[in-house]
Amino acid sequence: MSIKITGVGSYIPERVEKNSDFHEHEFLYEDGSNFSQSNAVIIEKFKAITGIVERRYIHSELNNSDIAYLAAINAIEDAKIDPEELDYLIVAHNYGDVLDKDVQSDTVPSLASRVKHKLRIKNPKCVAYDILFGCPGWIEAVIQANAFIKSGLAKKCLVIGSETLSRVVDKHDRDSMIYSDGAGATVIEASDEPGGILAHESATYSFEEANFIFFGKSYNRDNDDPRRYIKMHGRKIYEFALSHVPAAMKSCLEQSGKNIKDLKKILIHQANEKMDEAIVKRFYKLMGAEAPEGVMPMSINKLGNSSVATVPTLLDLILKGKMKDQELVKGDVIMLASVGAGMNINAIVYQV
Amino acid sequence: MSIKITGVGSYIPERVEKNSDFHEHEFLYEDGSNFSQSNAVIIEKFKAITGIVERRYIHSELNNSDIAYLAAINAIEDAKIDPEELDYLIVAHNYGDVLDKDVQSDTVPSLASRVKHKLRIKNPKCVAYDILFGCPGWIEAVIQANAFIKSGLAKKCLVIGSETLSRVVDKHDRDSMIYSDGAGATVIEASDEPGGILAHESATYSFEEANFIFFGKSYNRDNDDPRRYIKMHGRKIYEFALSHVPAAMKSCLEQSGKNIKDLKKILIHQANEKMDEAIVKRFYKLMGAEAPEGVMPMSINKLGNSSVATVPTLLDLILKGKMKDQELVKGDVIMLASVGAGMNINAIVYQV
Repeated sequence: MSIKITGVGSYIPERVEKNSDFHEHEFLYEDGSNFSQSNAVIIEKFKAITGIVERRYIHSELNNSDIAYLAAINAIEDAKIDPEELDYLIVAHNYGDVLDKDVQSDTVPSLASRVKHKLRIKNPKCVAYDILFGCPGWIEAVIQANAFIKSGLAKKCLVIGSETLSRVVDKHDRDSMIYSDGAGATVIEASDEPGGILAHESATYSFEEANFIFFGKSYNRDNDDPRRYIKMHGRKIYEFALSHVPAAMKSCLEQSGKNIKDLKKILIHQANEKMDEAIVKRFYKLMGAEAPEGVMPMSINKLGNSSVATVPTLLDLILKGKMKDQELVKGDVIMLASVGAGMNINAIVYQV
Repeated sequence: MSIKITGVGSYIPERVEKNSDFHEHEFLYEDGSNFSQSNAVIIEKFKAITGIVERRYIHSELNNSDIAYLAAINAIEDAKIDPEELDYLIVAHNYGDVLDKDVQSDTVPSLASRVKHKLRIKNPKCVAYDILFGCPGWIEAVIQANAFIKSGLAKKCLVIGSETLSRVVDKHDRDSMIYSDGAGATVIEASDEPGGILAHESATYSFEEANFIFFGKSYNRDNDDPRRYIKMHGRKIYEFALSHVPAAMKSCLEQSGKNIKDLKKILIHQANEKMDEAIVKRFYKLMGAEAPEGVMPMSINKLGNSSVATVPTLLDLILKGKMKDQELVKGDVIMLASVGAGMNINAIVYQV
């Protein structure tokens, strides 16, 4: 028995927020002081590092569980399954449903319950729960679905990664330009075909790293806004990712029994273009090889960093032929990899 | 191989909030109108139905992840394990960390990452994640740990249920008297001893029931407070629980191969005394038997409803000889059962 992805789907919000839309923002340092550079310079530098030209935000009337549902419909159609047959419906996210212009995360009921409700699934044996695991949440949920199928608990699972970071950004923080909204979904099934999930690797580094990504106050110290926003220590994350992600990828590939030359694509969490490139470069170096041209498809330029949604969205775009010069055919070996709040790291080696 | 609970722990907050502490509250109906009865009458009626005389709140300087950590220390000591050997650290909760007098749920990093950080665990292979599954979250996390051990992913897991409902209550809602704070933790291990987890059952009813427990505005309609609080449709929940929980318990017991007469105790989620009694009574009726005296130990009278924490806390109190006239010895067969937001239901048959 193999465990395969039999359907993929995503929801890419319609609203495009361009870099130029940030020109009027008042960016501040952490201590509330002003930048000496102009916004034009700040944004140009931002683009050079992250690769981000534009990102997507959901419309004000939508919510995180709505877009999770829209991606789910897509994946269910692609898998051609009856949703009543699902044994698990898992939603990875980090901030729950946050209404437009609101400050509260709404997590009761779970987003998985909301999505199951919207999908009109009646079967009570379809167990719906949420997982919080930072940006690597979707990959981790796939690993959990894999374990449930292996242990005989399940045959078919719907695994969704959905996030609306636009609802938790501090406008005075340059990093606000990184964050985006989106949802990706996959159906995972036990299969008689060869391939599927060949190996996986997960890790949580929290001894020193637990608060590298955190909930913090606005950089605008003038107002007494008690509201907290997504915040990160970018430099520390960069160094952390470089020193730990390539090793996890190596370990995962070795477990899979596949050779570095077998690896056709690496779908890495769209965190930051320069960081992702450095990770993949170092991974290949660890394996005594050189990264082939085009091995790392990137969507960050147009879609930004939508946390748990980046990897399943990228997979959906490639499998559906929507990424220029990128395709996957049966038998191809790929790696999915992610790093994010926790700090958590994970990877999967998968054969299409 | 069996899968056993090898250590239990809990944290019961020191601050006692008595029913009399609610005498000055202005209770309102959902539409904002006043009750015709006095608070004395409302509280007496509340006590008669729920069984709650007092409940526990955490001190203002503490947070949900702090008490999760305190319960975890307790369970680790009880299991006599080195925490570095843990393969998983799972925290079930619903609202994250909510600071005293604050309105935001802080869920990044996950509470599991925070607990792992506080426990000073270095091992990155100890994967820390949170699960959101309503009140049945802790039992569900035990079921997940069981699957991870069965599928070869793990040998030792720390499973915590921790909640601070005092931080999300609407003072104008009578139901606010139900909610409480607390944390319970267990170490789950692969074992050569007989018994352990014999069977489990999980279900999500979201077709009609998804919003029986939800996030809603204060019953005080006078102020323009946008803040939302934990809310529930009590009557609907009661009817739902009565019609579905006994059947799930029956199914679980039958899967375990045990007879109703083998069942020594039922540790049921401490939601509401009258409801819990009715569920257990109906369960026995379904099994063609009568509920024996003392089969359902209750802590709700003194501890209130602390969501995910009630079942592991109850288990800790009994196993450590802290509940009057309640004890468990090796070989005893018990059932753990829960119902809550989602609406989710689950049960485990366990042999000590």
